[in-house]
Amino acid sequence: MAKNKIPARLHLDEDEIPKAWYNVRADMKEKHEPFLHPGTGKPCTARDLEGVFCPSLVKQELDQDTRLIPIPDGLLEFYRSMRPSPLIRARFLEEYLGTPAEIYYKFEGNNTSGSHKLNSAAAQVYYAKQEGLTSLTTETGAGQWGTALAMACAFYGVKLTVYMVKISSEQKPYRKAVIETYGANLIPSPSDTTEIGKKILAADPNTGGSLGCAISEAIETAVKTDKCRYVLGSVLDHVILHQSIIGQECKAAFQKYGVATPDIIIGCAGGGSNLGGLISPFIGDKIKGNSATRFIAVEPASCPSMTRGRFAYDFGDTGRTTPLLKMYTLGSGFMPSANHAGGLRYHGMSPIISKLYRDGYIEARAEEQTAVFDAAVKFAKVEGILPAPESAHAIKAAIDEAVECKRTDEKKTILFGLTGTGYFDLSAYISYNNKTMTDYIPSDAELQKGFDSLPNI
Amino acid sequence: MAKNKIPARLHLDEDEIPKAWYNVRADMKEKHEPFLHPGTGKPCTARDLEGVFCPSLVKQELDQDTRLIPIPDGLLEFYRSMRPSPLIRARFLEEYLGTPAEIYYKFEGNNTSGSHKLNSAAAQVYYAKQEGLTSLTTETGAGQWGTALAMACAFYGVKLTVYMVKISSEQKPYRKAVIETYGANLIPSPSDTTEIGKKILAADPNTGGSLGCAISEAIETAVKTDKCRYVLGSVLDHVILHQSIIGQECKAAFQKYGVATPDIIIGCAGGGSNLGGLISPFIGDKIKGNSATRFIAVEPASCPSMTRGRFAYDFGDTGRTTPLLKMYTLGSGFMPSANHAGGLRYHGMSPIISKLYRDGYIEARAEEQTAVFDAAVKFAKVEGILPAPESAHAIKAAIDEAVECKRTDEKKTILFGLTGTGYFDLSAYISYNNKTMTDYIPSDAELQKGFDSLPNI
Repeated sequence: MAKNKIPARLHLDEDEIPKAWYNVRADMKEKHEPFLHPGTGKPCTARDLEGVFCPSLVKQELDQDTRLIPIPDGLLEFYRSMRPSPLIRARFLEEYLGTPAEIYYKFEGNNTSGSHKLNSAAAQVYYAKQEGLTSLTTETGAGQWGTALAMACAFYGVKLTVYMVKISSEQKPYRKAVIETYGANLIPSPSDTTEIGKKILAADPNTGGSLGCAISEAIETAVKTDKCRYVLGSVLDHVILHQSIIGQECKAAFQKYGVATPDIIIGCAGGGSNLGGLISPFIGDKIKGNSATRFIAVEPASCPSMTRGRFAYDFGDTGRTTPLLKMYTLGSGFMPSANHAGGLRYHGMSPIISKLYRDGYIEARAEEQTAVFDAAVKFAKVEGILPAPESAHAIKAAIDEAVECKRTDEKKTILFGLTGTGYFDLSAYISYNNKTMTDYIPSDAELQKGFDSLPNI
Repeated sequence: MAKNKIPARLHLDEDEIPKAWYNVRADMKEKHEPFLHPGTGKPCTARDLEGVFCPSLVKQELDQDTRLIPIPDGLLEFYRSMRPSPLIRARFLEEYLGTPAEIYYKFEGNNTSGSHKLNSAAAQVYYAKQEGLTSLTTETGAGQWGTALAMACAFYGVKLTVYMVKISSEQKPYRKAVIETYGANLIPSPSDTTEIGKKILAADPNTGGSLGCAISEAIETAVKTDKCRYVLGSVLDHVILHQSIIGQECKAAFQKYGVATPDIIIGCAGGGSNLGGLISPFIGDKIKGNSATRFIAVEPASCPSMTRGRFAYDFGDTGRTTPLLKMYTLGSGFMPSANHAGGLRYHGMSPIISKLYRDGYIEARAEEQTAVFDAAVKFAKVEGILPAPESAHAIKAAIDEAVECKRTDEKKTILFGLTGTGYFDLSAYISYNNKTMTDYIPSDAELQKGFDSLPNI
């Protein structure tokens, strides 16, 4: 199709949904360091992990060599109910900015969970069901992952217990309601359903809870329940593998419509699942020397794990119970401020993304909250979609790059990931509209306190 | 394409979006009765209406003869950002029900307004802009129409004042927030910005307001503001004209994929805009004798304008200020109970739908709230989309028809309109989940009170 015939939406047909996930580790010149067992300090074996995670997912987690991993038919069946997701030319945003750049965004929010999380949730529940598991546990903070998992569990008929950070479950009653509507058992954390929960409640009966505590409760329940495992929605390699479908669809759609590989690809980065999924297939080409694409990770200035963190072994949770991961981290003891982008409020970063950043394949930048919401509202008004605060970090960077193209009069192609919608984040928009939103940049001394919590490895 | 090759989504390409709306009145053997001027009791002229409504829309409102009315290019440009909307085979629902029926649904909720309302909002704002108007007013209750109009006004650069029923603006702060994020001036009604508002407030300073009052305030402000008009999201003929794009896309997609015309088409009915838009092109064929399709309107048992109302001239608002419309109505004095499907809580029905029902082309049924939410949750779990309470009325009827097909072993094709998502209706789902939801059927005596408010015409 000629370039001037490119539609507003670069639509793929159902049979163009990828049939295999792309495992970027297979093309990385150096793999990331292995996970270490928190007790022994030795590399984790499959057996170490299988007590907590589903065996099929452990296999994917440890497979650094298989380039393409087939997507099972029973999962493709589910994907077809919501994919291919739209790849949209941001014509109205381009016009508003008066930029010569072409801007595209891959919109993953057109499902009830409201984000890309459903891609991995469905995969994880599918495998759990195949392995004969009857229930799963997880934690949720902002609620996108909990919602996605509840939807997938309802679809495949697997029971789910979600430990939701207590203060979030009170502040976000509608998120809680969606999760419960899909049949999940939602328990505000800390709770008296676990030993760790009881212990925390005994120490502080009025605590609002934390993600670290919720993770610990979910793992404890999984381990002590028959035919049950714990599942996680970001950070880990198998999650990024599942999310590679995002970038693969982008690549296929650009090829189908004759659009050259983007000059710049931008994603917001919390645990790294969206960014990793979006860039995987494109960065594979860059590693092989076939591409000059720039990759930009955007994180909140209030939680700057890549731009101001250390590259070190650290725990994945504040409870210090998970395997140790080599990653960019602010220290598991770092307490992020109440930035509204709950999904980016994480002390660490995916080991894959961390390694690619360390090796110079990815750039990173940190953005302040108010400027991010300025970009979000501009985008909403011209493109129509109200973005999630997380996604708006990518919008901010995309606008900045497009404005730079205007200055230099360069016709670059920019792709960014619009990971989700902001329909459950309206308290943040209210504070933006009321001009009560504030910015926060942690001081060096604050960051040092986080670094002091790093294990000595 | 062979029938067994039908994808999960019957996708149309961008250039298959209809280029003209279908005006079902042109094919109706008898037109509906004319609107009457509330003062003179005589048929309304264009001039009567142009003081309140945009002239282009008045022209469409009064045009009963032109079969196809072109969609302007500048509006098609906007439609391309969100259309064609998905037409989805409900494979998982069929499997869950074990029915031989084929079920399809047209999903209009994949936009930030969360419903089909945007189709007409964009059209109305487009024409207002073309006519040199600089601002619009409207009312909103549940909030879908207010959101859609705020999005369209932000896109075309037209100022908007939304009178939102005060109690709704307090109960739905997030709806209010979305509308304000898109830049609209939201005024809880009654307010001191109008004479009618001041009068109502003087009589009862603590009133929570009503849709009737909000309409009156919006009209008053439009009439007394320079280059300003009032716009309405349902009931009127030009709204149903704009919504015909829903049914036209369904018809085009069925033709493209070789699916025979549905045996049954189902839509929820409040003011009639969704139902009218969905069935228009199909009912045109039925009127011409080319089709045996059944059309089913589904309304809430708590507000049964078609199944228990009178076919009579009545006011469109409780304030008795609008032209008189010949329609099925419970009387403008009828006060619907607090059914959660706010969009269906209207005393009247579109004159077009009313006439088609009167003439036997449409069936109607009324459903109780709890049964509707049972259907909504079943649907959400298997099909993944959390439906709006309004849309769930259509789901309930579609499930009932599919179950009947199972009983009779008939392989019928069923199409229903999934008008929107329930993301802003979670208080209703909470009451369903908590089993505190109740049903309500008005007594004959209550209905009689409404009928007593009918004007003597």
